[in-house]
Amino acid sequence: MADSQETLLQKIKDQGDLVRKLKAAKESSEKEKKTNVGYNLEEINKWLSQCSYICGYTPSTSDIELFNYIEKNLNIESYQYIKRWWYHMRSFSVSEISRFPKNKPPIIMNKIPKVNTNTLNEQIQDEVAKLLALKAQLGTEDTSPQKFTLKTPKGTRDYNPQQMTIRNDVLQKVITVFKRHGAECIDTPVFELKEVLTGKYGEDSKLIYDLKDQGGEILSLRYDLTVPLARYLAMSKISTLKRYHIAKVYRRDNPAMTRGRYREFYQCDFDIAGQYDMMVPDAECLKVVTEILDSLDIGKYVLKVNHRRLLDGMFEACGVPDEKFRTTCSTVDKLDKTPWEEVRAEMINEKGITPEAADRIGEYVRLNGSTELVDRLLQDHSLTAAKPSVDGLLGIKLLLEYCELYGIKDKVVFDLSLARGLDYYTGVIFEAVLTQPIKIGNEEQTVGSIAGGGRYDNLVGMFDAKNKQVPCVGVSIGVERIFSVLEAKLAAGEMQVRTNEVDVYVISAQKNFLEERMKICNELWNAGIKTEQSYKKNPKMLTQLQHCEENGIPLAVVLGESELKRGIVKIRSIKARQEVEVPREKLVEELTARIAELGKVEQNGQ
Amino acid sequence: MADSQETLLQKIKDQGDLVRKLKAAKESSEKEKKTNVGYNLEEINKWLSQCSYICGYTPSTSDIELFNYIEKNLNIESYQYIKRWWYHMRSFSVSEISRFPKNKPPIIMNKIPKVNTNTLNEQIQDEVAKLLALKAQLGTEDTSPQKFTLKTPKGTRDYNPQQMTIRNDVLQKVITVFKRHGAECIDTPVFELKEVLTGKYGEDSKLIYDLKDQGGEILSLRYDLTVPLARYLAMSKISTLKRYHIAKVYRRDNPAMTRGRYREFYQCDFDIAGQYDMMVPDAECLKVVTEILDSLDIGKYVLKVNHRRLLDGMFEACGVPDEKFRTTCSTVDKLDKTPWEEVRAEMINEKGITPEAADRIGEYVRLNGSTELVDRLLQDHSLTAAKPSVDGLLGIKLLLEYCELYGIKDKVVFDLSLARGLDYYTGVIFEAVLTQPIKIGNEEQTVGSIAGGGRYDNLVGMFDAKNKQVPCVGVSIGVERIFSVLEAKLAAGEMQVRTNEVDVYVISAQKNFLEERMKICNELWNAGIKTEQSYKKNPKMLTQLQHCEENGIPLAVVLGESELKRGIVKIRSIKARQEVEVPREKLVEELTARIAELGKVEQNGQ
Repeated sequence: MADSQETLLQKIKDQGDLVRKLKAAKESSEKEKKTNVGYNLEEINKWLSQCSYICGYTPSTSDIELFNYIEKNLNIESYQYIKRWWYHMRSFSVSEISRFPKNKPPIIMNKIPKVNTNTLNEQIQDEVAKLLALKAQLGTEDTSPQKFTLKTPKGTRDYNPQQMTIRNDVLQKVITVFKRHGAECIDTPVFELKEVLTGKYGEDSKLIYDLKDQGGEILSLRYDLTVPLARYLAMSKISTLKRYHIAKVYRRDNPAMTRGRYREFYQCDFDIAGQYDMMVPDAECLKVVTEILDSLDIGKYVLKVNHRRLLDGMFEACGVPDEKFRTTCSTVDKLDKTPWEEVRAEMINEKGITPEAADRIGEYVRLNGSTELVDRLLQDHSLTAAKPSVDGLLGIKLLLEYCELYGIKDKVVFDLSLARGLDYYTGVIFEAVLTQPIKIGNEEQTVGSIAGGGRYDNLVGMFDAKNKQVPCVGVSIGVERIFSVLEAKLAAGEMQVRTNEVDVYVISAQKNFLEERMKICNELWNAGIKTEQSYKKNPKMLTQLQHCEENGIPLAVVLGESELKRGIVKIRSIKARQEVEVPREKLVEELTARIAELGKVEQNGQ
Repeated sequence: MADSQETLLQKIKDQGDLVRKLKAAKESSEKEKKTNVGYNLEEINKWLSQCSYICGYTPSTSDIELFNYIEKNLNIESYQYIKRWWYHMRSFSVSEISRFPKNKPPIIMNKIPKVNTNTLNEQIQDEVAKLLALKAQLGTEDTSPQKFTLKTPKGTRDYNPQQMTIRNDVLQKVITVFKRHGAECIDTPVFELKEVLTGKYGEDSKLIYDLKDQGGEILSLRYDLTVPLARYLAMSKISTLKRYHIAKVYRRDNPAMTRGRYREFYQCDFDIAGQYDMMVPDAECLKVVTEILDSLDIGKYVLKVNHRRLLDGMFEACGVPDEKFRTTCSTVDKLDKTPWEEVRAEMINEKGITPEAADRIGEYVRLNGSTELVDRLLQDHSLTAAKPSVDGLLGIKLLLEYCELYGIKDKVVFDLSLARGLDYYTGVIFEAVLTQPIKIGNEEQTVGSIAGGGRYDNLVGMFDAKNKQVPCVGVSIGVERIFSVLEAKLAAGEMQVRTNEVDVYVISAQKNFLEERMKICNELWNAGIKTEQSYKKNPKMLTQLQHCEENGIPLAVVLGESELKRGIVKIRSIKARQEVEVPREKLVEELTARIAELGKVEQNGQ
């Protein structure tokens, strides 16, 4: 049945020729048809549906022309593939665009050909598929190097050993604090049924990563750790839990990687679920944040606190209609980055709030202080006429009392402009903000918000068939921003990290000592000593010593023929460049003692 | 422009009525049309294209009838939605299917209605959409509980605190060994450009999870940690690295969760990249596996080793044509689960190997032993006539010598039936297998393969533009199987875990002591002591003591009015149920000493 090898090779050659001819035909057809001017969006959309941007697609002059034209003149909302192209174009920075070759022939669009090149394209695809099928019959895979640009997906990155060391150190400090407060650890799958995430994130839902429907359940990557926690509590019928969860979450946002904003990033969450007395768990969340930020030692910060009920009462008092509370809230949330005048304009023009109401809100959101501000507002009868205001104010007052007992009141600011975007908060909300830019080398880096959270009493009930509620409060630490600060310090030479923990390197000065080295390594490993050796049979002495210095390995065992005959090995202290002789059988004992000594010195040095 | 609240509510009511009427019409139309017999796959396929399986779809009798009928009589390969339904049906276990209600009316298929219920369905969808749009105008989200079955995606699970404790303990032991051998840690994104994974996994590629094309790059979830490592090395132009990587990988396989086979699961990989002398890094990988399995203490095991070059030489010597080496290899790989007769039949009938060649292979793959077997095979001239055989045999011989030096030769078996499925291996291959079932309660659990790996010298080059190779060898530890064994032991009461590390619980016997408790907690936290208290204002004494006992908290601070007046607090030892009085200002000091003491006892107890 199957073709002979020879026949197959001939068929592959013929098929290859056919594909090349078709491609040439397509190319010349494209060259001819560049007479059309103006843009037919329908045609362009069809055209772009066949275009892939993965293989290192570089925009042509025409692409840039069209991009600029669309920006000013056209609405592309209903053209799926133009939109995809548009997002791709937008991902280039201005400086990148300026470097695109100006005279490159247009490769994608503008001057859409009038002959149906689509047919030609489809034909090419078909024939290429046949060619591949033939090659597959040959049983040999195409082993030539990949043609696409080698990169990690947009907004993601690899962590190299230095970055991992920084990351693990930071996470270890965070975990230490979580455990100090008795939190247990849980984990959930990286994806959830899409329905689990639906309707939880308001406008941000468009940033959720969906998985392809490959026949089976419809899935999405988790967007945060709070909704999976709520799903977990409802599904497992758990009504009290103090847990931490450290894991990556996924958002199709526009990444700003140098500032620690990625599409794949870590969240470190601490949450307390259960029906408890007012503000007791809430105050502990604030205490946890201060302990973490203090232990990371990244500068001065304030903890802004506010209350969703107070915001509701304030909006009511200012004359904002009920159904506009949420949308007004998300406008207020922009106050940390946007001046009041712009926020006011958005309220009036986009959200339909009256100028009078906006101005009254403006007076409130400018306020911040502490207990004395709570007391003053409790006397503000137009505010306290709204019941939610009173709830919120009394809540904040109690929270501040507990913060006093926890010794953190000086770090807490009651700030009426704090709103937080997410829909699910119902009580106290808070955010930790660094108050000074961090100096790295000669540059200053503004970090801003570094932790945030609040109370969400209704989220678990959304997952429960009987709508049974489990009140929750929690906080999320923005460790990516901390990583990026520390990485910048590392790059500026302001800190050093060791990426391995090896204590001993086994060295030989002479040739043919591999077997002897292996025996020693085996002994040391069996004794639990972190040990390495060269993987070369006859490495050079200098190379081996260099390896120790470059990797911060403190000790070396040096093997020599004459010493071994005497039953002796040498231990070398790398920094001091000193060697001492020890009896072969005392080696493990001696090394163990020296390593313990080094550990003590290191601990005292910290 | 907008409707008044009242008008809107009326509209919503009307629209709701319309939807209900349409649904009723559809239902009765479906009931009427159950006269048709026999299966029209075209129609069923169309019908199933509208069916979602997420909302807790329970198969009807008709579903099961059709399922059984298809299994015996029909080819559904070209019907996309029938296949999806088929996979869903297959996911139910036999015992689950036996529990399905027998008399439930058929809800999906068989007796396909002749009237176009599709139109009715579309109409319903449209009207439901309108209803939702109206509700959205109302500005209130539908906060009624979710209708879909609450679950994690198929083949995945949450880890509760006990499971996390087990998982973290196992991973910690694995990491300890990796670090003892000087490995550095890296991490890569959970997804890769789809092209990175293409052509690396042979037949298994169909198990890769793809992400939905949401405009941008085409992405897939990582399938293992080896291909991302190769991509990382090529992209970062790194030619030597000893790294470990512990992370979750994703495979759309048929899960067998009780045996630790999931769609989302952990891999713990240790790899050595670089141009080194033969078998030196390879032998260290085997040493690492033994250290890990010994430290996990999960029973006796053997390390099977073989060599891809030897397999090639053996196939050549037996008369298998070159182009069939790989496919024959994956057939041989089944020998661990399948008797030789079946494997032989597959070779002859499916892979087109001659019976004579198959029988000659059969003689070789039955062999296993150690150095003496290598020596015997080196005398087998029909085998050594093929150059690759000699390379492979000499490689194995050297590896066994190094294993002797590393003190693990008694655990290593040279086994000619070991083949390993993945395409990318080029040299030594190995697998660790538990030799005894593990006894848990009265049941025995067979675990089988628990670690595997090998040398892959050509993978990095596939990613390099100039095809520059970086030779690599590595091993992957199958920790999920270890987790599942330990979890079964936990469930059988054969082991215990503590899910928190709290040392001190702050208790008060009287009412209104919350503030005093808070002050003490604050002091203890600030001193780094792991401390908890009740989040209730006035918890009961008994409840507090129970909490300590249930959570294994060893110490409690007990506050009482009369003692506080005397400047005294009590420290209670929970297990011993003994209390001692200490001066308030000595509390931290005293607790620190006791906790250190407890730590020592625990260490000695291990």
